[in-house]
Amino acid sequence: MTSTPTTVSMVALTEFEIIQHYFNNETHSSFVELGVGDDCAVFVPTIGKKTLVSVDMLIEGRHFLASASPEWIAHKALAVNLSDLAACGATPKAFLLSLGLPQQLATDEWLAPFAQTLQQLAAKYGCILAGGDTTRTDILTISITVIGESPAPIMRSGAQAGDIVWVSGTVGDAALALAMAQDQHLTFTDSLSDVQVAHLSQKLHTPSPRVKLGLALRGLATSAIDISDGIAGDIRHILKASDVDALIDVDALPLSLELRLAQVAGIDILPLALSGGDDYELLFTSSSHNRQAVLDAAANVGVHVTPIGNISTCEALLPTVRYCDDQGRVIDYKFKGYQHF
Amino acid sequence: MTSTPTTVSMVALTEFEIIQHYFNNETHSSFVELGVGDDCAVFVPTIGKKTLVSVDMLIEGRHFLASASPEWIAHKALAVNLSDLAACGATPKAFLLSLGLPQQLATDEWLAPFAQTLQQLAAKYGCILAGGDTTRTDILTISITVIGESPAPIMRSGAQAGDIVWVSGTVGDAALALAMAQDQHLTFTDSLSDVQVAHLSQKLHTPSPRVKLGLALRGLATSAIDISDGIAGDIRHILKASDVDALIDVDALPLSLELRLAQVAGIDILPLALSGGDDYELLFTSSSHNRQAVLDAAANVGVHVTPIGNISTCEALLPTVRYCDDQGRVIDYKFKGYQHF
Repeated sequence: MTSTPTTVSMVALTEFEIIQHYFNNETHSSFVELGVGDDCAVFVPTIGKKTLVSVDMLIEGRHFLASASPEWIAHKALAVNLSDLAACGATPKAFLLSLGLPQQLATDEWLAPFAQTLQQLAAKYGCILAGGDTTRTDILTISITVIGESPAPIMRSGAQAGDIVWVSGTVGDAALALAMAQDQHLTFTDSLSDVQVAHLSQKLHTPSPRVKLGLALRGLATSAIDISDGIAGDIRHILKASDVDALIDVDALPLSLELRLAQVAGIDILPLALSGGDDYELLFTSSSHNRQAVLDAAANVGVHVTPIGNISTCEALLPTVRYCDDQGRVIDYKFKGYQHF
Repeated sequence: MTSTPTTVSMVALTEFEIIQHYFNNETHSSFVELGVGDDCAVFVPTIGKKTLVSVDMLIEGRHFLASASPEWIAHKALAVNLSDLAACGATPKAFLLSLGLPQQLATDEWLAPFAQTLQQLAAKYGCILAGGDTTRTDILTISITVIGESPAPIMRSGAQAGDIVWVSGTVGDAALALAMAQDQHLTFTDSLSDVQVAHLSQKLHTPSPRVKLGLALRGLATSAIDISDGIAGDIRHILKASDVDALIDVDALPLSLELRLAQVAGIDILPLALSGGDDYELLFTSSSHNRQAVLDAAANVGVHVTPIGNISTCEALLPTVRYCDDQGRVIDYKFKGYQHF
């Protein structure tokens, strides 16, 4: 990917021009031997490390608002994929971009900030654009494939009875921001300061993939997943893969100032915090004797992590998540996370 | 991916049900350590081999007809990606599926044959489904990421002056089939036998990726590309990457019986053979002293290959492809291959 070109017309560009001007990345690394410009990207695996690959497709109107800026879209498309690597404790190495672009966006005005944001975010995490394709669509569609490496990936399947359940950062912010963008909670929205609105917007549109935290948790986390569909839905993936139960203390959920203000304003924040998607925080488990080690590791990379529950032996036929308050009283919570169909 | 389930309702399925019933592949290999069901797929690279990754997005109405069957769509979506591995001489190992599915196709009627065809084609080439995601879209969108391995990938950049230009199979068939599907050449279509129509249809809808040929060409091909946008466009990628010129003898182009019949019927077949997309044959170069070795290697895997021209030193500022007939007379050919914008 090059920096903003100086001689690109404002009319719709051809596929060749788009790749040539915006995605013709010639950066290499010890891992990326050959990137953009051949039938395949060629990677040289590091001896002793495993290769991790994940793909996520983002579609206008479903994963981002039609009104979203090219910067927001580029950020989110790459960040959600980096978040998958983070959840496995993998080091990002490269990514491939498959771009379905409506003709009206095949302009420098849209592509330049899109490509620049992708480049900047990728560079921040040492992740090199190594290929992909561009085609015309009616609805903006972005599929990114990320490639990372790890000597010992953290999987969903390692949670054990007695483990602590942790979550990074705060939860529910993106869901609150989305509700506000959809003109819900107008009185509450008006009560917030510009800084508070900006914080929520940032959580929704430009989430920070917890790559450093994922790396710091190597050897400490027994399982991990990134929260894309809400804690209530995503923890079930850990429970199912590990064949264990979990008890979550809803009063322990880490909430931002904005979410606490929403609670004070009478908004039911539990569905936001437990079933709101798009937070891209890490939900993970560790053995209880590593409690302080987890806190220290997270502090070392500047991320707050909070214990929110415990893992226990699976008691029924299927793994179950239960909810309680800080008095241990059972909460009947039914939301199960976002479903795409 | 499981075989056709017996207890799936005919109503629209949820994302979870779709993955669970159709794409919950638990197959592993020495390469695929962890597949479907975690944030990332985990691969164990073979020592001494490089990892090759390619991604192609296929969109309804652009890459396949809206009337195409789920079998055709599944076949083509995976085949065009396997074709990218073939062009690099790589062994297919795994693939990830990113599926944007309209609600009306989230049924067993569509998903069962789609998944089964993917499974069969993947198994034929030893390629394991190792992950992906499913989301709802208005237009069917399929992005497949393939992962392969090779000790020494064939790249576009190795063509040298004096090399022979080769093409596998026959060219122009898919373009003729597409024109016929669009109700062009009706009189000619009526003149064909059912077998001939079926042959053309097969070339368009279920192309055979030249994986075995790509592997057989290791150490012989100096460069290669798969023909997705037509020889005229795709050879330019080799010329540009290798900084050489090429002369193509249009009378040497390998044509099927059906294309020769079309020629006899007065159809201008040169644009079909040179600029028709979707043939997914391999266009490659070898040194002239490996002429017989290339013929033998191709024969060993049952694929016909034809020398169609030669590589020469780049004479102008930019690499150029020229066309001639079998008398050496220059042909003025202007088509440059399919452009997506």
